[in-house]
Amino acid sequence: MEFIQRYHDAIEQYIQTSLPAGPPLSLYQPIQYLMSIGGKRIRPALTLLACEMYSQNHQTALAAAYALEIFHNFTLMHDDIMDQAAVRRGQATVHQKYDVNTAILSGDVMLIHCYQVLSSYGPKSTEILHCFNQMAVQLCEGQRMDMDFETTEQVSIKDYLTMIEYKTSVLLACALQTGAIIADADEGEQKHLYAFGINSGIAFQIQDDLLDAFGDAAMVGKQAGGDIIQGKKTYLYLKALELADAKQKESLLGYYQAGAMADPQEKVEAVKKIFVDTGAKEYALQVRDAYNDLAKSHIKALTVNDDHKKHLYVLADFMAARKM
Amino acid sequence: MEFIQRYHDAIEQYIQTSLPAGPPLSLYQPIQYLMSIGGKRIRPALTLLACEMYSQNHQTALAAAYALEIFHNFTLMHDDIMDQAAVRRGQATVHQKYDVNTAILSGDVMLIHCYQVLSSYGPKSTEILHCFNQMAVQLCEGQRMDMDFETTEQVSIKDYLTMIEYKTSVLLACALQTGAIIADADEGEQKHLYAFGINSGIAFQIQDDLLDAFGDAAMVGKQAGGDIIQGKKTYLYLKALELADAKQKESLLGYYQAGAMADPQEKVEAVKKIFVDTGAKEYALQVRDAYNDLAKSHIKALTVNDDHKKHLYVLADFMAARKM
Repeated sequence: MEFIQRYHDAIEQYIQTSLPAGPPLSLYQPIQYLMSIGGKRIRPALTLLACEMYSQNHQTALAAAYALEIFHNFTLMHDDIMDQAAVRRGQATVHQKYDVNTAILSGDVMLIHCYQVLSSYGPKSTEILHCFNQMAVQLCEGQRMDMDFETTEQVSIKDYLTMIEYKTSVLLACALQTGAIIADADEGEQKHLYAFGINSGIAFQIQDDLLDAFGDAAMVGKQAGGDIIQGKKTYLYLKALELADAKQKESLLGYYQAGAMADPQEKVEAVKKIFVDTGAKEYALQVRDAYNDLAKSHIKALTVNDDHKKHLYVLADFMAARKM
Repeated sequence: MEFIQRYHDAIEQYIQTSLPAGPPLSLYQPIQYLMSIGGKRIRPALTLLACEMYSQNHQTALAAAYALEIFHNFTLMHDDIMDQAAVRRGQATVHQKYDVNTAILSGDVMLIHCYQVLSSYGPKSTEILHCFNQMAVQLCEGQRMDMDFETTEQVSIKDYLTMIEYKTSVLLACALQTGAIIADADEGEQKHLYAFGINSGIAFQIQDDLLDAFGDAAMVGKQAGGDIIQGKKTYLYLKALELADAKQKESLLGYYQAGAMADPQEKVEAVKKIFVDTGAKEYALQVRDAYNDLAKSHIKALTVNDDHKKHLYVLADFMAARKM
């Protein structure tokens, strides 16, 4: 998206000039490594966009945007340890390239560094930190729920939606609200932007579940059916369980059982068929669109000019309907 | 120390009523576990003491004191993973009782929770957070240096002192300064309290090194010579290397070499003899006392009444000269 892309240079430059360098190098180099291997910088772009919508200028929000990108990468550094992920953005994860202790400690100092930056906004820091703290707590809660779901037999759709709201949406919502706070937007605007972020994030995550099962592997850039092979409890899976008849349910549970011995490709195809036959796929598409519509209703309620709204509508559709 | 002890109930009660409870329980129970297995609560007591010295009341500092105790326990939770420590305060460490992922994530949310509490001090939060952020970064840097020293051949005494200042002193200093900030003490007072904490903390750590080698195991409550057996580069070791003649140096390096096969008890006795013969023990005692004197000079410079000063002098001597 061109209007996100145009913040890219400003963000990259801010990152390069603001990352702490040490000593000790062993603490700060892993941070520079993770920050240098890419990332779409969507969250800081949202902060700059929101700020510019209300103040015709994104400069004042650059520090906060940077802090939110650092925070996002902090969560990646720690989550990758927990998930035992070896690869991130096509490169070795920090705990893989260095070691687990390094990823723990460098992650910790990243989180503290965020607070250093966010505390530098004078009187506005109070509001910024209030938004940030709530988001950061929820993000930890979401990660915990996600971990717990792996060993929970009965995960409700309600809990799943809370989990993805916490794990994905709140950071997007906070990034938008932070830009609005810095630009002195009034509380009503902040709330609509926040709600836009929440709903758009949920649409994004349901789309992510859909893409994993039904997307074009080459376009999506990851293994097709990876969630199914790993037995991940996605929206599709939970909805299919709910809608399934006795036979479909037995079959689906069988495929998801720990240690199920089916051939991966056969398993993916069989499970996808259940997702379609139960109506779960169709349902997920509708729910995704409903969240996208909800997100758009909050764009409509904003008082910003139509150009800005257009950008947000494009963003909403991008989040909800990346190519399958 | 009775004047520390008298804050104990207030601190414990504040902890019990303020710790977040969840859901998710799996995120918050490990925090309640670690906070419930004891600890001397020295850091929060310092905050309350400093506040009371300038405002005749410690109530307003309770939240900040609590946050600093949470922060201290966050560092323990993560450090115990890094050090692969199985026991803390006579109980299983969090990563041992639960798992490493739990200790990472519950630790993260503890750090965020500290910030929630410290951000609630209105306009004073700026000053409090400035002090806290610098301390927290230094603490990570100190932990990193400590880890790096394990594999560094030549550790200078200067670097060792920086490491213990960051790992131990800055949190004590920050705890004192935070109480003073909350009580509206002026900047000069804050600086002296901070410097008192720094110097007292270094004396404390050098004493800790001395106790480990020369203390009475039964009184100190840990294995005598543990640092020597582990080949830890303590003040005594680094000073002994500096003061040693060629033969003593060869002998000491031999005992500390990775995989040195000497009988542990024999090794401890031989190394202790080198510490004495080189004059390193005597030197360490003098340096410890010099830091204690420096700490006391900052007490002297305070404008508080003599009763308060007396408490701080007792505290200084307790830190520098716990029983051997």
